Amino acid sequence: MATVDLNCDLGESFGNYRLGNDKEILRYVTSANIACGFHAGDPSVMRETVKLALSENVAIGAHPGLQDLAGFGRRYMKITPREAYDLMVYQMGALSAFIRAEGGTLHHVKPHGALYNMAAGDRDIAKAIAEAVYNVSEEAILYGLAGSESIKAGNEIGLRTSQEVFADRTYQQNGMLTPRNVENAVIQDEEAAISQVIKMVKEKKVFTVQNEEIPIQADTVCIHGDGAHAVEFAKAICDKLKEEQIIIQPQ
Amino acid sequence: MATVDLNCDLGESFGNYRLGNDKEILRYVTSANIACGFHAGDPSVMRETVKLALSENVAIGAHPGLQDLAGFGRRYMKITPREAYDLMVYQMGALSAFIRAEGGTLHHVKPHGALYNMAAGDRDIAKAIAEAVYNVSEEAILYGLAGSESIKAGNEIGLRTSQEVFADRTYQQNGMLTPRNVENAVIQDEEAAISQVIKMVKEKKVFTVQNEEIPIQADTVCIHGDGAHAVEFAKAICDKLKEEQIIIQPQ
Amino acid sequence: MATVDLNCDLGESFGNYRLGNDKEILRYVTSANIACGFHAGDPSVMRETVKLALSENVAIGAHPGLQDLAGFGRRYMKITPREAYDLMVYQMGALSAFIRAEGGTLHHVKPHGALYNMAAGDRDIAKAIAEAVYNVSEEAILYGLAGSESIKAGNEIGLRTSQEVFADRTYQQNGMLTPRNVENAVIQDEEAAISQVIKMVKEKKVFTVQNEEIPIQADTVCIHGDGAHAVEFAKAICDKLKEEQIIIQPQ
Amino acid sequence: MATVDLNCDLGESFGNYRLGNDKEILRYVTSANIACGFHAGDPSVMRETVKLALSENVAIGAHPGLQDLAGFGRRYMKITPREAYDLMVYQMGALSAFIRAEGGTLHHVKPHGALYNMAAGDRDIAKAIAEAVYNVSEEAILYGLAGSESIKAGNEIGLRTSQEVFADRTYQQNGMLTPRNVENAVIQDEEAAISQVIKMVKEKKVFTVQNEEIPIQADTVCIHGDGAHAVEFAKAICDKLKEEQIIIQPQ
Repeated sequence: MATVDLNCDLGESFGNYRLGNDKEILRYVTSANIACGFHAGDPSVMRETVKLALSENVAIGAHPGLQDLAGFGRRYMKITPREAYDLMVYQMGALSAFIRAEGGTLHHVKPHGALYNMAAGDRDIAKAIAEAVYNVSEEAILYGLAGSESIKAGNEIGLRTSQEVFADRTYQQNGMLTPRNVENAVIQDEEAAISQVIKMVKEKKVFTVQNEEIPIQADTVCIHGDGAHAVEFAKAICDKLKEEQIIIQPQ
Repeated sequence: MATVDLNCDLGESFGNYRLGNDKEILRYVTSANIACGFHAGDPSVMRETVKLALSENVAIGAHPGLQDLAGFGRRYMKITPREAYDLMVYQMGALSAFIRAEGGTLHHVKPHGALYNMAAGDRDIAKAIAEAVYNVSEEAILYGLAGSESIKAGNEIGLRTSQEVFADRTYQQNGMLTPRNVENAVIQDEEAAISQVIKMVKEKKVFTVQNEEIPIQADTVCIHGDGAHAVEFAKAICDKLKEEQIIIQPQ
Repeated sequence: MATVDLNCDLGESFGNYRLGNDKEILRYVTSANIACGFHAGDPSVMRETVKLALSENVAIGAHPGLQDLAGFGRRYMKITPREAYDLMVYQMGALSAFIRAEGGTLHHVKPHGALYNMAAGDRDIAKAIAEAVYNVSEEAILYGLAGSESIKAGNEIGLRTSQEVFADRTYQQNGMLTPRNVENAVIQDEEAAISQVIKMVKEKKVFTVQNEEIPIQADTVCIHGDGAHAVEFAKAICDKLKEEQIIIQPQ
Repeated sequence: MATVDLNCDLGESFGNYRLGNDKEILRYVTSANIACGFHAGDPSVMRETVKLALSENVAIGAHPGLQDLAGFGRRYMKITPREAYDLMVYQMGALSAFIRAEGGTLHHVKPHGALYNMAAGDRDIAKAIAEAVYNVSEEAILYGLAGSESIKAGNEIGLRTSQEVFADRTYQQNGMLTPRNVENAVIQDEEAAISQVIKMVKEKKVFTVQNEEIPIQADTVCIHGDGAHAVEFAKAICDKLKEEQIIIQPQ
């Protein structure tokens, strides 16, 4: 029987600033990627979010990003693989301490934003990130873009990996996402987005923007936590997955 | 036979900025307090310093501080006990991950600067800090000012504690340090400073500025790592301790 | 004829984080205090907010704070008068450049949060802040708590000053605000808050929590920009002031 | 008679961290580029450095960088032209306020590190930077890599520009610097470096790594302020320039 994980970025508030609908979205997702203080989140938000995820019985992951709070970790920075390793270790450790203090376990790690994209496409960065995860917690599952360098590097070092797909993004012939600055990068229609997910999970295939079918491994689906319709969309995708008899659970 | 630990603050470089004589001072001390990125240090410096301490067989401790890089964690900030707890957990976790990645063990925790002083005198902050250490690593030893609230809070929660004394600072009748802005706060004469340490370790006593003897527990002595004469002083105190048949080792 | 200024803290968004109802509140206030990047705001938010204030014909002021984004500049930090001077000059300069680039003029300066409170009660900090304002822009008006050290220091150095009062805070016999942690510090009833303002502006008097009348100078009233009812309250106070024939305008 | 300016990056200390030999190097250079707090420097360092430069009668410039203290502003970050504009305005304003408070004048602006390189090669970034300088202070001279986009954009908007050359870097046929990761990028021999400067100033020519002569405009020479031999090299180049009857002065 088909299974899939729904993951969401959480704990992105900072100090006086609130972001996201953490409490509501946790009712629908099965794994939570918690920001670790570099691109978003702060120590108090991390503690609260870990607690909240535990109370909702959702698998907890670290969501480390570039040290760029002003840019929310979304701006590419030319860092070395060594720097990528170091900032991964630092942030994973910080979140792990809150998890331990609250009696939980680190389930997975998913790099954020520009770091996620670098891990997907840059082999050296991907290896450095996989090594960081392995050295800090070899039981943790590495989440990465389906079919990317990140997944390869994780598998090579001996980590379990989870291939991530996107409901609302279109795919190219090489299996990579259409860059956001290209037309047709985003699927606006909610129903089309959900259909794409169902197809990826059940058939392990996806239509590209060129309308060709290519194979894809969909272990986990990224659910957005902010925006006006985030919670509604999460509910809609959950409902449809259940209707299709797909079991929603973390790996 | 009398024993004592010599500890030093290390890993205080940041990015392009170098600080301290970490490599030289590690030859003389038995425990290293490594900055965790809030008041000093960065992920790369932390990794390198952990590695260096391991190679010198020196016990590794976390040295968390206030989030004030501009003030080097030395400026008092009015934080809540909850905020103190959170920033302790965060930083201890970050350093622990580097220690784990390098194959070592977290031996102790010593708050830095203004946070150290707050832990010494403010019961609620002291309890929050002890709780943070206990929740992240109940085997870690809490270093604190001898006779202070920090030591009491550590003992109460069930942590091992290490009472810290200072070679170059004078003491008052209540066992606390003479504040730096008061005359006679600092012992300028190196020989007098070393004699004070020997007396504290062997006799468990110290002369106050009022020239009275009071009891003191000297488990660990703080050795400064920067300044022109830091390394020489560390060597001089080591030589004298050995001459007095005092064993230098971590708890 | 009685006149009063209504001021509001604006430009408190940061990066990906939105805060406040800047656009709406600008319809009701006559002077805008714009955050300068230390406790809130960033360069892009500053540019946008300056532009917005100019388009609404509202007087623009700098709103410098402590370098504590995590604490929104609300946590007391033990800084020296020299440090206070330096962070004031830095932030005033940064905002002034955006004002100049957009063709406006710096009208006033109002320290934020903990820095505002320090300026109100600490004579040395108050003098350092007044000196900073004077050295950067001697035409700027210094906003400070009515009757406080801040106002005295501003007057002494030769600045124009604007005495600020609060609609929703209660006053003590010495003319200072009741601290927030004391009962009755905040006036919950909107009508009572507005009545207090009218009385302060028209009669130059206020009732203390001990129900005694004391004199007060109300040049400018602080209007909150965030919170659910901020805009409604701003409108209500404007309506009442107009009804009472009080002219709302900056100094 | 030939003239040239010698400029140096100064004020790069931060909080507890000291960097550079500002006081010594100021005896040899004619213009000082002062860090503005994003990649290095802090408000107190800025005030002190402005004061020092004024006392040495050296022309004062702003030296704004990317918001990356950890990477010293040397790591490329993918920012938009609008973000480049905003961070330039912010930092120029902050420094200008210290200059005004000390009674001086902003003489020039030179972007730092990765931002300097982006301005040299990216037309849109170059235009945004030139616009920022023009809007904040149209009398300020824009320093940029000789022959680069930065100089072109400055000239187009109506700024005076100063073309910068490097003593210890080699040039390629298109007039650009050999990238640091390429062999022969750096001239190790001090005498050869000085000869290159003399040739550039007197003949307005430079030999490329391919040993061809190309034209170059050398208005200002970058002198390094840190490193063991920085001060000696500054003295050596000054001596040689004087020997060659070249007048050392700012534009």
